[in-house]
Amino acid sequence: MTGAKRVLRVIAGGTRPGRVALPVATWVQERARAHGAFEVALSDLAEVGLPFFDEPEDPRTGRYVHEHTRRWSAQVTAADAVVFVVPEYNQSFDAATKNAVDFLFHEWANKPAGLVAYGGSAGGGAAVRSLVPVLRAVRMMPLPDTVVVPAVRGRLTAEGSLLPDVVLDGTLARLLDALARASGAHADLRSA
Amino acid sequence: MTGAKRVLRVIAGGTRPGRVALPVATWVQERARAHGAFEVALSDLAEVGLPFFDEPEDPRTGRYVHEHTRRWSAQVTAADAVVFVVPEYNQSFDAATKNAVDFLFHEWANKPAGLVAYGGSAGGGAAVRSLVPVLRAVRMMPLPDTVVVPAVRGRLTAEGSLLPDVVLDGTLARLLDALARASGAHADLRSA
Repeated sequence: MTGAKRVLRVIAGGTRPGRVALPVATWVQERARAHGAFEVALSDLAEVGLPFFDEPEDPRTGRYVHEHTRRWSAQVTAADAVVFVVPEYNQSFDAATKNAVDFLFHEWANKPAGLVAYGGSAGGGAAVRSLVPVLRAVRMMPLPDTVVVPAVRGRLTAEGSLLPDVVLDGTLARLLDALARASGAHADLRSA
Repeated sequence: MTGAKRVLRVIAGGTRPGRVALPVATWVQERARAHGAFEVALSDLAEVGLPFFDEPEDPRTGRYVHEHTRRWSAQVTAADAVVFVVPEYNQSFDAATKNAVDFLFHEWANKPAGLVAYGGSAGGGAAVRSLVPVLRAVRMMPLPDTVVVPAVRGRLTAEGSLLPDVVLDGTLARLLDALARASGAHADLRSA
């Protein structure tokens, strides 16, 4: 790993008004900036504004007819590592996160992925379990260090910020360390 | 089971131009009409046109602020049974199908669900496996009789119709029988 910072893109899922993904993503971004290894960028999927998948060709071809696909492709291409902030709906990930993954293919390949999930009966564990095979299908490297945030609404301040405890901060720190190591390896692979 | 026909709603996932869900859904509708137990209706999710989930409240409350949600709620409420025609993208269901399920809650409860999947490396098996826990989370009854259509593009005629073989027709017939039995039980539960 060289001294250069890795580009870490935080992808915030969920699109409903008042979504909790934003305070969780803000927490991840703050800790990632403090960590030191990363240049941090955010993709809020409600702002990215992709429609449901509408490309005529398989993303494996890399041929895109829509400008929204090319914009999304550029954001992911520029990343060395990704953190998905995923709400759990009905024992699985949300539709916006799945749709954003399905739009692309080669852009994801060999990139380490961190999963930070919340919601559901077990704090997002089912969202993590359902997303891992999807990320492997697009040739990402989902890391074993994951973060689930149980009872997330009870951790929000009146202003809507996340109040993590020492355990959550510790699990996120381990994920960021793993992403730093894995994205260093990835950058070396790319320059080889 | 009384003599009255059950309302079977076929929900076609996938939203891309040229989606194969429509020929597969047409095959399911034709066989369901010929079966005799059902009044058959189609929801083509590209036509239903739901946005990504945008209700401010949890669907478990049944409080909806958007007209598109109320329209979708009415379609599902009127069904005694549902068949999901699901494309497999990246080892899982498509985003439009997940989104359509997540929009509602009580409307799905106790209704039998048939799964007809295609695409992917194993003909849609991973789409089925990933959707079952989602349907159980909204209190549906996904039936063990499922239909996967391997090599679906090789089964399309020049006009874009599905050409099923005797094996596919047989598995669909078993699914329709199971839906007829289970939706009879459901209608009895509702009238009790």
